[in-house]
Order: sequence, then structure tokens, then C-alpha cells
Amino acid sequence: MAGSTEVYRASATAPVNIAVIKYWGKRDAVLNLPTNSSLSVTLSQSSLRAYTTASCSPTYPAEAGDTLTLNSKPQDIQASKRTLACLSDLRALRRNLENANPSLPKLSACPLRIVSENNFPTAAGLASSAAGFAALVRAIANLYELPQSASDLSRIARQGSGSACRSMMGGYVAWRTGVLEDGSDSLAEEVAPASHWPEMRALILVVSDVKKDVPSTTGMQATVATSALFPTRAETVVPARMTAIETAIINRDFPAFAEITMRDSNNFHATNLDTWPPTFYLNDVSRAAIRLVHDINRAAGETICAYTFDAGPNAVIYYLEKESERVIGTFRSILKAETQGWDGVFGDAVKHIKSGIALENLDSRAVGGLREGINTVILTGVGEGPLKVDKHLVSEAGEILDRAI
Amino acid sequence: MAGSTEVYRASATAPVNIAVIKYWGKRDAVLNLPTNSSLSVTLSQSSLRAYTTASCSPTYPAEAGDTLTLNSKPQDIQASKRTLACLSDLRALRRNLENANPSLPKLSACPLRIVSENNFPTAAGLASSAAGFAALVRAIANLYELPQSASDLSRIARQGSGSACRSMMGGYVAWRTGVLEDGSDSLAEEVAPASHWPEMRALILVVSDVKKDVPSTTGMQATVATSALFPTRAETVVPARMTAIETAIINRDFPAFAEITMRDSNNFHATNLDTWPPTFYLNDVSRAAIRLVHDINRAAGETICAYTFDAGPNAVIYYLEKESERVIGTFRSILKAETQGWDGVFGDAVKHIKSGIALENLDSRAVGGLREGINTVILTGVGEGPLKVDKHLVSEAGEILDRAI
Repeated sequence: MAGSTEVYRASATAPVNIAVIKYWGKRDAVLNLPTNSSLSVTLSQSSLRAYTTASCSPTYPAEAGDTLTLNSKPQDIQASKRTLACLSDLRALRRNLENANPSLPKLSACPLRIVSENNFPTAAGLASSAAGFAALVRAIANLYELPQSASDLSRIARQGSGSACRSMMGGYVAWRTGVLEDGSDSLAEEVAPASHWPEMRALILVVSDVKKDVPSTTGMQATVATSALFPTRAETVVPARMTAIETAIINRDFPAFAEITMRDSNNFHATNLDTWPPTFYLNDVSRAAIRLVHDINRAAGETICAYTFDAGPNAVIYYLEKESERVIGTFRSILKAETQGWDGVFGDAVKHIKSGIALENLDSRAVGGLREGINTVILTGVGEGPLKVDKHLVSEAGEILDRAI
Repeated sequence: MAGSTEVYRASATAPVNIAVIKYWGKRDAVLNLPTNSSLSVTLSQSSLRAYTTASCSPTYPAEAGDTLTLNSKPQDIQASKRTLACLSDLRALRRNLENANPSLPKLSACPLRIVSENNFPTAAGLASSAAGFAALVRAIANLYELPQSASDLSRIARQGSGSACRSMMGGYVAWRTGVLEDGSDSLAEEVAPASHWPEMRALILVVSDVKKDVPSTTGMQATVATSALFPTRAETVVPARMTAIETAIINRDFPAFAEITMRDSNNFHATNLDTWPPTFYLNDVSRAAIRLVHDINRAAGETICAYTFDAGPNAVIYYLEKESERVIGTFRSILKAETQGWDGVFGDAVKHIKSGIALENLDSRAVGGLREGINTVILTGVGEGPLKVDKHLVSEAGEILDRAI
């Protein structure tokens, strides 16, 4: 880890996760404590990932302090309380190690130089903060050689971005709301590893022409403050669904998993519509996707795919690999031939599939609406948690390497 | 009332009403008993009305039974349990009168010949059943010279179509859910007559290209059966809002009336989104209207207009006459010059108004969306309840007169 010029480096990649029980609403905005538990599927880093190198050195100028470069752009780290909270907690853990073992290099005293890149398609409207903070926390924990578990570290990532705590591990991950005021029991837990149910796939339909009206943090706090229906969601609906979907995952029961996922997405967006003034993240293209998933399942005579929508119009369609023909085939025949994004690791396996359920079984207006509204897809699946990588975005001499990934 | 050939006739017109606290969900589908109370504004019959002549005669062939002609088309009255329930109750009330006073003609023993027309723009997607059943009940009650009050008769109209009970009177009308199993206390009551707050106006934005996915009766019962949020609406949200909006009406407090109206529309549509599978009545044009109303109110610095949406995408915009310049002026400058429907009684008063709030204060995408999605408006206002009219749709000889209104 030590470079020839006393530059210490460690790098990690971290995944995106897409919730099937949605996080929406903070009971503590500083500690990022949620009003309800949530559950997500970690998506493969072969498609989407944040890549972060954490480095530190006594040779870095102390007056510059910690620095962060994101997608080649220097960030004002002092302006981000959330980033500062993560760095402060990680440094404290390192200091504990150093205090316990004086032979360790005093990395906690060195300025950090952090460089991060992500490979998300621009304008995809995909929340990059979860993967970004997970990669940052994982890279610094690696740099500091922290012994804490992923679940322990998820508490720190949570302070960066709530859903980042779920990107600290792979597979099927629950974020427990916790009850303690200091948030120490509000952390991510693995419900099942990716290997338990590796057949899970996700087709992301990226809606063109997106303009996000209301940022998530503003939107969720407006919902908590004004929706007459939100308390029922947080107190009654979500706790029951958390139990039910964990059972569905343990049993690899896709129809149950799918129905809970779709109902929870609808329930979450219902509380947005009930917010004052109302917030809308779904548009007519989103609605076309919802209609088509219901039509596909009806035509199939069983539940073979499920939609979910975060705070934006993009649809994420979960399905099992064995249903690629009927799910991917159908969406492929609906979408324009020039649609981008069918390539990649998961795309190779479905290259030969051109058709699925006959389009005459589907609502023709929804078919037309989806075709017009989608130009890009991302085909991916369940994947692993953050990975340690050996190629760094900072040179042995401490120089930032531009776009090395 | 008696014609020369013993044909008895009576005619009535009845209004449309647009709820500000929505009726959605039946606790008894046969008696049409609602899960929650609702409240509406009766709209002027100078714009929209159902026109019905009820006639009966011992000369009408008994074997044909009661007959109904609607918009010049004979209806299969036996197929409509709802119509049969109304006729049966009205005939029973007449029979009581005849039993008490043997000198009365035995109209209850004669077949009914009912002819009804409405003047609603075709394809406007406006629910005509409320006005239709109110006109039918009022016309037959007139024919039978029933002494019952409008509130008493609203119980009967309710069995035809739930919201028809609110069209039995003018102004601001509450439909009390009631608690009795036989539904006898589930009826309409006047909260305030039209004369109490006559300045209320309604601009209906008729969304083009409407295809209604789910009929109201099916949709509402799906919501009751499947939405996790619906019980909160029916048990908690609506009762509080009923009290609050009645106070707002009594005090002629438009900002309070407007906010409750908008929040209740959003809350109602939220429970539809939470229905399984979800039902959507709002589309991107509806959302543009919502956005613009919020933008207009923000630009005005006060709440001068309110939206509400029934089970369809058409927006009804309530505002007070004194705000015609800012409300109608703004919508006029947003919509295409060739938009239909600015004429009529209420249109004459705003003919000179061409502009309102400057469009640069409004979301440009919403302006474009509304402009593209609306070709027809209906400009109307609060109005009176059913009216007795002397021109009949059945001749003295009992012949059906085609399109007499």
C-alpha cells in the first residue's frame, strides 16, 4: 500500500442498488435516519459502478486539507456536510487503530486525496450518490485498513446518502430503520447474497427528455410534512411488506417478490401525489411501462416481470433469467431497433432474442407510448458488493490520473 | 298535467355537479352507499343539463311496460337495476298518495314513458349519469306530484347513480355517508345555496384523445378492495376535510376552499395509484394543468384558482368571478386561439379578457403540454338545482318528440 514517496493508496468500486421497498422520508435529516426500513437489489458492477481511489500522504499539503475530484472535476468538500461526516467518522476509526497500535503509520493525520469516477450514462437520471458514497467509504476503509464489517461501515455510508448504506453489500440488502436516536442501529444487513438468487435480472428503461422537478431530499421531506397518507405507509404498509418480501427472497418466490415490488412502488408514488403541492415522478411513458408489465404478466398467465420506479420516470423491470425470451423479447420488439444499451455482459446472453409475447396481446397505446419515450436501456442483474481494485486513480507520486478507468 | 287523451306529463332539467371532496368507494353496491361523505358544487344548467320528460297514461300498452328513450335511443330498462330501483321507489310513493286519497288518478298503475336528452359535448368524457338520474327522479316526482323534499328524493336518485343525489339540489351540496344499513340516512343536504356564494366559476379543460381505462364503479371497488392507503382516506382524511370545507364555504373563504379541493383531488388519485393493479385517471396533460394552477397561484401571490379531477383527465378549475382576468386571461393566452367553448352565458362576461399572468412566470413545459392537449373548454359556474320545465319531450298524444330541446 505504501508508495515509494509515502503516498498510501487504496481503490474500490461500488454498485448501484434499486430498492423494491422504497426509502422515502427522514426522521433525522442530519444523521440520515429513515422513517421506514427499505430493501434493495444490488446491481452488477459490470454495468454500473462508481470507482474511487482514496489516497493520503504526509507529503500532501496540509493547507489544502482533504480533496475530492469527481468525474475529473474538483469538488468543494467543505460545502458537503455529508462528505465531511463520512470522512470524520472513518478518520476516527483509523485514529482508534493507531492509538491501539503505535507502530501503525499515522494516516489519520494526513490529508486525503480522493478521486472518483462513475460510468453511468449521462442524462440517464440514475442516482449516482448511493454508489458514489459506498465507493468512497469502502476505499477509505481499505486505505485505513479498518476491520469493521460492511454492515458497520454502512452506518457511515448512510450519512453520505441514505441509500448508499445498501450499496455496501451485494445481493439482497435491507436497511433497518433502527430505533436509537444516535442512528447506530440504522444500518444495512444482507438478507441474501447474490449467489442465493443469482438469476435476478434488471432491465432499466431510460426515459428520454427527463426533467426532474423536485430533488429527492426536498421531495421526501415535503411528503413527510404534508401527506395525509404517508404515516400509514411508514407505520403500517412498509413493515408488513418488509417481512413479506424477505420471505419471498428467501424462498426465491418471484411472483410474490414481483407483486410486493410493484405495489410498493405504486404506494410510494401515491404518497408523492398526496404531497402538498403534489410531486410527480411518473409520466405517461412510465405509465405505459406499468401498463405493459401488467399486460405481459396477464398474457403470460403468470407473473414474470415487475416494475419499480425511483424518484424519476425511468422504469426498472425485474425478471428472472429463464424468462428472458418472454420479457426481453417483448420489450425488444416494442422498442425502436436503434435503442441503445442492449450490449454488455448481460446483453450478450440475450442477443439472439428478438421477439417475445405477441404485441397484439398488449395495449397498443402503451406500446406506442413506450416506443416513443425510450431510446436507451441498461440490461443488468443482481451483483456483488463493493470490490477492492488494484488500479488506482492516483499515481504513486500522488498525481491525479485522468479518467483511468 | 292531464292531457286530452289522458296522457300525464311532467318535465325537469337537472345539473351536473363536480365534487370537491370526492366520492370513491361503496360500502353497499346495491344501495349505492358510499364509504365516505362527499361534497360538490352544482354547475349551472345554462351550460350542461339533462332534460327529462316523464309521462304516463292508461292508454300506454301495458305489455311494453315502462320505457326510457335516452338521446333518441330506446333503452333496455329491464337491464338497468339502478333505473328499476328508482322507478319502483317513486311508484311506491305515488301509491301511498293514491291510497291516502282515492280521488287521485291511479298513475302508479300506468306504464311510464320517459324521454331524456342531455346537451353534453360528445367525447367530453363528462359523467352524465348524475344529471341524468337527477332529472329522471325530479321529472317523475313532478309527474306523481310527490310532496317529498329534494333531500328525501336524493335517496332515490342515489340508487340510480351515487353522485346523482348531489344533483338534486343547487349550490354547495354534501352527501352524508350515513350509518344505517338500509341507507335511509345516506342522502344529500344543502350546505349553502348558490346565492350564498354565487361568484364561484368553473372552467372545465376537456382533454383531447381520452380513453378511459377503468369505469368508475369497477375502479372504486378495486380501490376499496386493494389499496392499503384507502382506509386512511375514508376514515380519517375525508371526515376532517368535510368539516373544514363546509366552514370554508360558509365563510366564503376561497383560499381554504381551494386548498382542500386540490388536496382532496390529489388524495383521491393517490388511492387510485395505490390500487392493485393501479388505475390512472390523470395523464401528462392533467399534470400540466396541476402545475399551471400552482404556478398561477404562486405568481399571483395568493390562491386564486383550484383544480380538481374526477375519474378522468379533464381538469375542472374553480375560481371566483373577480379573478376572471388573472385566471381566464392566463388560460386563454396558454390555449390555442381556436379552442372551442369560450361562448355561452359565462363566456360573454369574459369575452374581452385575452391575457392574464405573464406566461414567463409559468413552467414552459406545462404551458406547452396544456396547449397541445386541450381543444375544448366549458366555462360555467355554480348554479341551481333541478328545474321544472313546461316544454315536454312527449306530445299530448304520448308520442316521443325527437330532440325537442
